[in-house]
Amino acid sequence: MTYCVAMRLDAGLVFLSDSRTNAGVDAISTARKMTVFEEPGDRVMVLLSAGNLAISQSVRQILAEGRDEKRSLWTARDMFEAASIVGDAVRQVHKHDAHALREAGIEFNVSLIFGGQIHGERARLFHVYAAGNFVEATPENCYFQIGEAKYGKPIIDRLVEPSLPLGEAAKCALVSMDSTLKSNISVGLPLDLLVYETDSLRVTRFVSIDEKNAYFRMIRDTWGHRLRQVFGEINDPEWDAAAPAEFPLARQNENDRWGQPVRASRERAATRD
Amino acid sequence: MTYCVAMRLDAGLVFLSDSRTNAGVDAISTARKMTVFEEPGDRVMVLLSAGNLAISQSVRQILAEGRDEKRSLWTARDMFEAASIVGDAVRQVHKHDAHALREAGIEFNVSLIFGGQIHGERARLFHVYAAGNFVEATPENCYFQIGEAKYGKPIIDRLVEPSLPLGEAAKCALVSMDSTLKSNISVGLPLDLLVYETDSLRVTRFVSIDEKNAYFRMIRDTWGHRLRQVFGEINDPEWDAAAPAEFPLARQNENDRWGQPVRASRERAATRD
Repeated sequence: MTYCVAMRLDAGLVFLSDSRTNAGVDAISTARKMTVFEEPGDRVMVLLSAGNLAISQSVRQILAEGRDEKRSLWTARDMFEAASIVGDAVRQVHKHDAHALREAGIEFNVSLIFGGQIHGERARLFHVYAAGNFVEATPENCYFQIGEAKYGKPIIDRLVEPSLPLGEAAKCALVSMDSTLKSNISVGLPLDLLVYETDSLRVTRFVSIDEKNAYFRMIRDTWGHRLRQVFGEINDPEWDAAAPAEFPLARQNENDRWGQPVRASRERAATRD
Repeated sequence: MTYCVAMRLDAGLVFLSDSRTNAGVDAISTARKMTVFEEPGDRVMVLLSAGNLAISQSVRQILAEGRDEKRSLWTARDMFEAASIVGDAVRQVHKHDAHALREAGIEFNVSLIFGGQIHGERARLFHVYAAGNFVEATPENCYFQIGEAKYGKPIIDRLVEPSLPLGEAAKCALVSMDSTLKSNISVGLPLDLLVYETDSLRVTRFVSIDEKNAYFRMIRDTWGHRLRQVFGEINDPEWDAAAPAEFPLARQNENDRWGQPVRASRERAATRD
């Protein structure tokens, strides 16, 4: 599996991807999921991929080659056109491979996050689906996740909004990734983190994070430690508190009442041997 | 959907369930997922259910009725036998319904957590599958989740171990539930929380938690607030730090190197019009 997350903030874009890939638990290896397309001063685009690795590598190959001079990521006039070129690449791979995959009982499974900025336009972020269609991040919904997304979603939901500074957003993405790494063995290091500052039109902040990375280790240690500390500071429930209305004990229900928590009790208990 | 979690600790058992059920987004209603079987002084058993509601209600009905005098939750000699009786109830429903469900294109989907204590034995916790087989919680793996489990898993993985006091464990279950509620609309209030103290052999701590519950509201507010606070206290990544080895910037890779993060650049950039 995979976990990738990207955020579109007022200050720019944050992209983070893991690098674990597996075809069954006995076939685990490392494949990075991030591809950067850059023409300094003119455009920076980042592609994150999840799903069938053969499909996403084919998509990446098509996009990196950009053989069609008239319609490629290098010539796209804006990010919407660029996203549709990514979608077309997915459809091209679908046309080439989907039938054979179906014959083999394999779903055409790929999911992409694609974002960046082209000179003259704002930074934009898209989620491209296996059908080649896509949606764009908005201020109300300013991030996308692909792959094993659920473990790392709550912390993002609690923290991320467009006004979040880039450093905070990168930190949040790493905490989200840490939660995922901790709970799911199919997601693994190294991580690729790219933070794009709006209007920089070049990659200035990219890092590949492995076990030795001091900052990520600090986050892992500090976050877990402080989380337990905060948790310890919150009062435990008081079952014998003076306000029982807040904690009503279950009443004995002799009959099953569906739609209610059932407290079945055995009337004939006395007859047990 | 559903989210239920239960933990087996040295001090006892904690059970928490939500009450949202849905058959599509236009058919959402409330159905509680907790059933308590109690014979004070002799046994307390708690069943949490996820999956197809018709199946889990049928299982519950069979277990609550306990028609087979010789083999019911009321007569089981130990929790292992009780768990196998739950498994048998699942198989009984399967025998009755699975064919018709399959004809209708519906999977036989049910997942149960079942735990408690019978006089003379320790408290035990089981995860019962749709096939009627089951596994038991161990000190190494002392909790089970069913339903929408992923959102609330990281916080449990960070905090729960058998030595955790019951109050802390209940609090952790509620934080885990809060994270799930925040990220997934298919899980909803009210919640049923039951905390069982080893050897009490009766239900002493049960509460149904709705929007008005002051303790749960405190947890939701405090946890979110303190989480943001702790998050703010952790340093942002420093991209221009004195130790660039920790944050190496990506090197320009002119060629695609698969297995590496690809930084594709267009050599013919100068020829663009």
